[in-house]
Amino acid sequence: MSENDTSKPSRRAFLSGAATVGAGAIASSVAQAQTADPLITQPQEWAQGFGDGVDAAPYGLPSQYEGDVIRRNVEWLTADQISSINFTPIHALDGTITPQGCAFERHHSGAIDLSKSDYRLMINGLVDTPLVFTYEDLKRFPRENHVYFCECAANTGMEWAGAQLNGAQFTHGMIHNMEYTGVPLRLLLEEAGYDVAGKWVFVEGADASSNGRSIPMDKALDDVLVAFKANGEALRKEHGYPVRLVVPGWEGNMWVKWIRRIEVTNFPVESREETSKYTDTLENGVSRKWTWVMDAKSVVTSPSPQTPIKHGKGPLVITGLAWSGNGAIKRVDVSKDGGKTWEAARLAKPGEKMALTRFYLDTDWDGSEMLLQSRAMDETGYVQPTKTQLREVRGLNSIYHNNCIQTWWVRSNGEAENVEVS
Amino acid sequence: MSENDTSKPSRRAFLSGAATVGAGAIASSVAQAQTADPLITQPQEWAQGFGDGVDAAPYGLPSQYEGDVIRRNVEWLTADQISSINFTPIHALDGTITPQGCAFERHHSGAIDLSKSDYRLMINGLVDTPLVFTYEDLKRFPRENHVYFCECAANTGMEWAGAQLNGAQFTHGMIHNMEYTGVPLRLLLEEAGYDVAGKWVFVEGADASSNGRSIPMDKALDDVLVAFKANGEALRKEHGYPVRLVVPGWEGNMWVKWIRRIEVTNFPVESREETSKYTDTLENGVSRKWTWVMDAKSVVTSPSPQTPIKHGKGPLVITGLAWSGNGAIKRVDVSKDGGKTWEAARLAKPGEKMALTRFYLDTDWDGSEMLLQSRAMDETGYVQPTKTQLREVRGLNSIYHNNCIQTWWVRSNGEAENVEVS
Repeated sequence: MSENDTSKPSRRAFLSGAATVGAGAIASSVAQAQTADPLITQPQEWAQGFGDGVDAAPYGLPSQYEGDVIRRNVEWLTADQISSINFTPIHALDGTITPQGCAFERHHSGAIDLSKSDYRLMINGLVDTPLVFTYEDLKRFPRENHVYFCECAANTGMEWAGAQLNGAQFTHGMIHNMEYTGVPLRLLLEEAGYDVAGKWVFVEGADASSNGRSIPMDKALDDVLVAFKANGEALRKEHGYPVRLVVPGWEGNMWVKWIRRIEVTNFPVESREETSKYTDTLENGVSRKWTWVMDAKSVVTSPSPQTPIKHGKGPLVITGLAWSGNGAIKRVDVSKDGGKTWEAARLAKPGEKMALTRFYLDTDWDGSEMLLQSRAMDETGYVQPTKTQLREVRGLNSIYHNNCIQTWWVRSNGEAENVEVS
Repeated sequence: MSENDTSKPSRRAFLSGAATVGAGAIASSVAQAQTADPLITQPQEWAQGFGDGVDAAPYGLPSQYEGDVIRRNVEWLTADQISSINFTPIHALDGTITPQGCAFERHHSGAIDLSKSDYRLMINGLVDTPLVFTYEDLKRFPRENHVYFCECAANTGMEWAGAQLNGAQFTHGMIHNMEYTGVPLRLLLEEAGYDVAGKWVFVEGADASSNGRSIPMDKALDDVLVAFKANGEALRKEHGYPVRLVVPGWEGNMWVKWIRRIEVTNFPVESREETSKYTDTLENGVSRKWTWVMDAKSVVTSPSPQTPIKHGKGPLVITGLAWSGNGAIKRVDVSKDGGKTWEAARLAKPGEKMALTRFYLDTDWDGSEMLLQSRAMDETGYVQPTKTQLREVRGLNSIYHNNCIQTWWVRSNGEAENVEVS
């Protein structure tokens, strides 16, 4: 008796649809199950014995049935393991938080093993007092907590050349989203007494690559964190244990891991990592200096090539992720016909600045093929572009910063494929 | 040159303090480090070779240096492993999210192994159409995402008898806080067509204990979730894989794991789990029927017995967690003198309903001993009581639902101990 629930008319309307169409999909299998399914009619093994005790796993791992929800690399992209990338299984996740254990990695000389007691962070250059902080020193400064996404500038990069990788994990999985705890970099720069002539900081990691990056002082003083926790616990080794930089909304390469030194300078260093890489070469052969902010972007994570529709027509939840380095996501639209028509998706929560936003479209699938797309809009009014629109600005030379609309061709059998629509 | 930053006067005031007092603590060790510390003066091993490649851990685990940040049980509380509890290492965490791997467990007959394909959820009783849902069926209903705390009714229970357990992990660690993804129970009850005469649901798990609990229909229709993800990924085995109930703000025992059946009834079943356990016996020997909501509570997680102050006097970050089953935390106060005087703590973010709130007090420790306490206030105006205040209502027979103010005695050497102040 739910007729008296009129508070959410749109959901009721959906459920009326589900009660009719879904009756075919859900209730018929139910009727069958109740008479024939031994999982209903027979006592089950797991209800007749004891399970694991509380000492079974002092630190737990995923269920044995979730063995495919892991980081994966792409063999032909991985010339060298220690200077390569793997991908978050975003096709299999929901919500917004990325567990550290399956959050993508990108290393330039491998993930190093550095203990808290061996950890040092130097701040030098244009400062009153060069300082070296131990890990324990950092924990004496006021901390902040923020959920932020970290996206590699190369995420979706292979898609510049057409539909190259068949799965949201591979096309869009160079991203993760965690709750960081750290000290605002501003407080450490103030402690050292930074010179107002210092318009930049140059940041280095403790690994062999050092992965040096220049960051404008305005950003360094704004929202950059020197972080030591992610999702409540210590950073994992592969995410920069014990301390990494968090540069909200900006490309992942700037989130220097195992951070060892911050030099205040009055010029950008123009290091290898910000000249030969992570720049966008335009039509005329000149590289744009620089592209730090990750523009608004989205992707449907399910259904997608790795998560086909297995239940046939009727009620279907289409879901995905949206984000913007320029602020909060305000709206996401979904198209089933390759961008001809759009429906507003439901945001699980109001978008938060520089954090992943989960969207849902609760729909009724008639079993016909779809060209599924999503399109994100952020608080600045920016709308995620098509690849054609991006090409008009960027030409044909780009490798990085591809935030164009993605298309999955979902066939009548529920299988999905990465395709390009013009 | 940070003199021109006047936007946050209170933080600047703190930093002025840190620059002076901290100069003793931080800058002196720095000066020493720069001349003598081989970690600064010598090239380091980890900067001269390669680290782990991207295939090293398809699903990662914490750093080898974090081996003590694990769930722990208390031997004298654990008569039987499969019907016992372990504790979240809240003393070592920061932020608000609890990673599943170290989130406390409480089992009544052990953690069972149940696959998605073997999973069935029955809704029966006072309904138009009894239904059985497969896991795939559940994924066809609209989903929601919410961060909620789950606290065992017995959390802090041993403290009724005085300062029994020496560490925040053991006194307050029967709690975790995750982002859940699931289907509102309301939608499944509507699908089955629940009878308005059904004022209760009785919920069972698929484990041998079945852990049956009665929940008022009003709550079931309000915010209860049938959840399959936590922190983005599948629930872990020990947290109810593949599906558990999420009952926001209410005692953890009602969050039935491996949920197999929901019966709509017009009476509470008064099962073992809601009569012989999880009730509060008052002074006169009569048990209160029932105590579902977990009242506002807080605890200082650091410094605490497991996380002593090691850096001596000067800048000190006092931090902890606050929560309320009745809504959002509005304010947390910290006392250093056993409740004689209080200072308002800084909330890392505005409190969210039925979710953990992280608080900080950025202070300057003069090295004298402290009787550290925290006191939470929620949006209803409720203030966390002292044990004396709680005793006035509850008498001496209580085992569960102890939300009284906790005291850590921090000595001049930085070590802390669980004590009781009257």
